[in-house]
Amino acid sequence: MIDLYTFTTPNGRKVSILLEELGISYNVHKIDITQGQQFSPDFVEINPNSKIPAIIDHETEITVFESGAILMYLAEKTGKLLPRETKSRYQVIEWLMFQMASVGPMFGQFNHFNRFAPEKVPYAIARYEQETLRLYGVLDGQLADRSYIAGEDYSIADIALYPWVASYEFMGLTLEKHPHLKRWVEILQERPAVQRGMAVPA
Amino acid sequence: MIDLYTFTTPNGRKVSILLEELGISYNVHKIDITQGQQFSPDFVEINPNSKIPAIIDHETEITVFESGAILMYLAEKTGKLLPRETKSRYQVIEWLMFQMASVGPMFGQFNHFNRFAPEKVPYAIARYEQETLRLYGVLDGQLADRSYIAGEDYSIADIALYPWVASYEFMGLTLEKHPHLKRWVEILQERPAVQRGMAVPA
Ligand SMILES: N[C@@H](CCC(=O)N[C@@H](CS)C(=O)NCC(=O)O)C(=O)O
Ligand SMILES: N[C@@H](CCC(=O)N[C@@H](CS)C(=O)NCC(=O)O)C(=O)O
Repeated sequence: MIDLYTFTTPNGRKVSILLEELGISYNVHKIDITQGQQFSPDFVEINPNSKIPAIIDHETEITVFESGAILMYLAEKTGKLLPRETKSRYQVIEWLMFQMASVGPMFGQFNHFNRFAPEKVPYAIARYEQETLRLYGVLDGQLADRSYIAGEDYSIADIALYPWVASYEFMGLTLEKHPHLKRWVEILQERPAVQRGMAVPA
Repeated sequence: MIDLYTFTTPNGRKVSILLEELGISYNVHKIDITQGQQFSPDFVEINPNSKIPAIIDHETEITVFESGAILMYLAEKTGKLLPRETKSRYQVIEWLMFQMASVGPMFGQFNHFNRFAPEKVPYAIARYEQETLRLYGVLDGQLADRSYIAGEDYSIADIALYPWVASYEFMGLTLEKHPHLKRWVEILQERPAVQRGMAVPA
């Protein structure tokens, strides 16, 4: 049994989507980050960086935080969605890292300045909108001649990217200029496991 | 033989430090990002995200971009600095992901607003300084009762963090309030491989 500590945000949903894809049963613990629950001593014990998501795998008594590490852990545990063969394995890992290092943080900064910041800072809004569109372009180029982000097979790199890319409307953006990325979003959103994972936590 | 595409920046130096630690011989290709060389068609062929670092391993003909993926690739290739045993393996991977997703992007935004942005934006400077200091605090807490970031053994998580943390003076900050982190920087900077890696590219 897996305990999943999560909230209604893209980083949390990566993990619930993967758990649904793998058919692993899990308990959802909602950590309401709008109420500061990520700073409770019990949760900081699980993730010293006080952010969701995190898991505890009771079969191994291993705790993992950082969504990218959790995706790799579950994929290696089950032997699914992350190839073992070196070349295709590293194609998945490099795009997973690209999601972790660029798509997540930069889309996050865009949302902050565009929606949440108490001050309007036109320079910062423009900076992160431009970077978001550049990243859409990188993804669109990659998807122009392959079905999934790291090749012909669906992988944890797609799962990491999906909740962030699929939130384009929330971000006030469109995918109209990125048709390959749009096609990929449409294909992923048909997957029942993606739909179930995106609905976690209730 | 490994071809390393890099520049005089923290993300590039992670890889040269690891190559030095592993004693793998490599050719350095300097990509001057201040001259836009990362956008040349030849380099975009290697990294569609047009950023250093990237490597080509001529033994396997595998190309890898994203520093975190490169560190994992070289560690798995040599069986060093990333344990195979699941629990300690994921302690390294989660801190590597923490570096990739938080330390790198957030310190990078702080440098941008604090030093490079054409406009002074006090809100953004304060936001990223605060986040940098919070991240110093997370690292300091982790290092309070262990020698290295993921436990008693030096790993690719330390290598990923070092060039970013060691640049505190460049960032106009000090480690005086974070004594465990300071101790860790001082220990790492004594390593000959770290010194050699930090001097790449010449
Ligand atoms: N790199 C981390 C990022 C996690 C993250 O930013 N989580 C957000 C929600 S999506 C959070 O918990 N924020 C609460 C806070 O920052 O205090 C990961 O991918 O797991
Ligand atoms: N997540 C990437 C980030 C790489 C990165 O930001 N590289 C910078 C230099 S440290 C770069 O090439 N910048 C050039 C540009 O953005 O055009 C990694 O860790 O490899």
